[in-house]
Amino acid sequence: MKLATYQNGSPDGGLVIVSRDQARAVDASTVAPDLLTALRNWPQAEPALRRLAESLADGSAAGAVAFDPTRCLAPLPRAPQWLDGSAFLNHGRLMDVAFKKPPIPDFDTIPVMYQGASDDFLGPHADVPFVTEADGIDFEGEFGVIVDDVPMAVSAEDAARHIRLLVQINDWSLRAVGAREVRTGFGFLQAKPSTSFAPIAVTPDEVGDAWRYGRFDLTLHIQRNGERIGAASGREMAFSFPQLIAHAARTRRLTAGTIIGSGTVSNADRAAGSSCLAEVRAIEMIAHGEPRTPFLRFGDEVAMQASFADGRPGPFGRIDQRVVHAPRPGRPD
Amino acid sequence: MKLATYQNGSPDGGLVIVSRDQARAVDASTVAPDLLTALRNWPQAEPALRRLAESLADGSAAGAVAFDPTRCLAPLPRAPQWLDGSAFLNHGRLMDVAFKKPPIPDFDTIPVMYQGASDDFLGPHADVPFVTEADGIDFEGEFGVIVDDVPMAVSAEDAARHIRLLVQINDWSLRAVGAREVRTGFGFLQAKPSTSFAPIAVTPDEVGDAWRYGRFDLTLHIQRNGERIGAASGREMAFSFPQLIAHAARTRRLTAGTIIGSGTVSNADRAAGSSCLAEVRAIEMIAHGEPRTPFLRFGDEVAMQASFADGRPGPFGRIDQRVVHAPRPGRPD
Repeated sequence: MKLATYQNGSPDGGLVIVSRDQARAVDASTVAPDLLTALRNWPQAEPALRRLAESLADGSAAGAVAFDPTRCLAPLPRAPQWLDGSAFLNHGRLMDVAFKKPPIPDFDTIPVMYQGASDDFLGPHADVPFVTEADGIDFEGEFGVIVDDVPMAVSAEDAARHIRLLVQINDWSLRAVGAREVRTGFGFLQAKPSTSFAPIAVTPDEVGDAWRYGRFDLTLHIQRNGERIGAASGREMAFSFPQLIAHAARTRRLTAGTIIGSGTVSNADRAAGSSCLAEVRAIEMIAHGEPRTPFLRFGDEVAMQASFADGRPGPFGRIDQRVVHAPRPGRPD
Repeated sequence: MKLATYQNGSPDGGLVIVSRDQARAVDASTVAPDLLTALRNWPQAEPALRRLAESLADGSAAGAVAFDPTRCLAPLPRAPQWLDGSAFLNHGRLMDVAFKKPPIPDFDTIPVMYQGASDDFLGPHADVPFVTEADGIDFEGEFGVIVDDVPMAVSAEDAARHIRLLVQINDWSLRAVGAREVRTGFGFLQAKPSTSFAPIAVTPDEVGDAWRYGRFDLTLHIQRNGERIGAASGREMAFSFPQLIAHAARTRRLTAGTIIGSGTVSNADRAAGSSCLAEVRAIEMIAHGEPRTPFLRFGDEVAMQASFADGRPGPFGRIDQRVVHAPRPGRPD
């Protein structure tokens, strides 16, 4: 089942069901006004949403229209928590080079994860405002999961049952700021502006065998201004999503709608390219002694889309955004 | 004006107005169902709430009852963001001793701040569940502010105008976990379970001259099992709350209801004692080469209450909580 959120003037947007081929959509507000409400009542909402999805598939759904991704907000425009791991060890090791810092202790055996802001996510076609190019504007292509209510101290085995939806993410990052913040030990704050999401959240059955071992066996294609940056696979996570959830919930419960991210998708095979510019630059530093690829500039466009192993497009739709100069508060520029 | 949130079965609770002497309360749901809704519509809600507060003060409010803090949730049981600074330099320096780590770079000149979970706050009398005493269970007495919508890149000068309410906080912390997490650079996650709040949130006028230079000129009295741990003043923040808000909003906007914390209240004068056990232990390590005060145990009680300089009780009411053993998921213990 594919779900999306249309702009409707409310902060949480309006829930729609999208057809398997992403061509058509139908309003689902008869079941739940928005996706967050549906997740809080998933045992009741899911069967009703699936019936509506079936009627969309067989052509009997009243009010079905062409699906328009440009009307989409993030599937959850705001969520209870946004917890982002760094589960691709290849990425973490290259980031140590990028940030010129020593390795993270126990990086191979204990997940690292930061808490991000979850009150103001961006949709797949929204312009992304930044204060200054000097902050080192970068993207991070990721996969993620959305859970229902998870009890404190859940096991990884039990955590798997709480995964309700799969999503595709661009975790915008400011590298000049991040290099400073990581040294404070307090984690990323200014370095992590609003995060963006591909338009469609899907139930795990929607990706079939490509959801395996609690990981996405999908390739994430990333372009900057139409130029390929990478096409890395989600397979190589050192920790599965259930393991990341158990890590997140060890000392707290998670409320329904919490989003857990994989961290930047990254593969040991350099031919896969990268899912962020900091990695590209770290590889250049290793090869040439200095980075050559600039960070993003105002006006740059970033596109991300997943695909299955056989080349078919992934189920999440496409992120296609432009980096823009944020207006200064109190001024009309 | 004093505001509190009564349990009413809904996740955000029900808004009540509390009399200046904290003796009486009146339901405010005719103005807004809950405090978060009121903050999102503050220009409309505030005058109506003040009229209701006046009618409570002059005895004309219909339905006024005795104020019962044991019915209170946190003023905001869930909030868009919870951003906690570490603005008392004395605390930060002692924590470097506690965590056996080098000083934070630029600690005197750039605020440090972590993003905490904001979806599951605890009320002033709620039991506080923890998985194991081995995590090093500790409290952190703090002050905080709640803002309305803050634009990205706001100046500290303009940020002051967005402070709507003042609050008193216990930022529960797990020191054994925190010592590990601070070394990852990704910040505190497992080390920061649900945060607790004193029952009453107040408008700044409610503390008069004790709200000055964007700081709380109030003393925070803290007891463990009835024994004094500290009585430190909020005056010594190295950064004001407007400066902390500007730091938080430099690369993101903040939505109404976001809470900004001071970090653990701490004074250079050792006679003031401490607002957390990690500080007590760091001072013992400096004096005796080893910590002597144990972290909290299941059954321990922690009380926090502010006072004015002349000894009058502060406006926030009292935090009075007990540390308990969290049940393991799936088991009835």
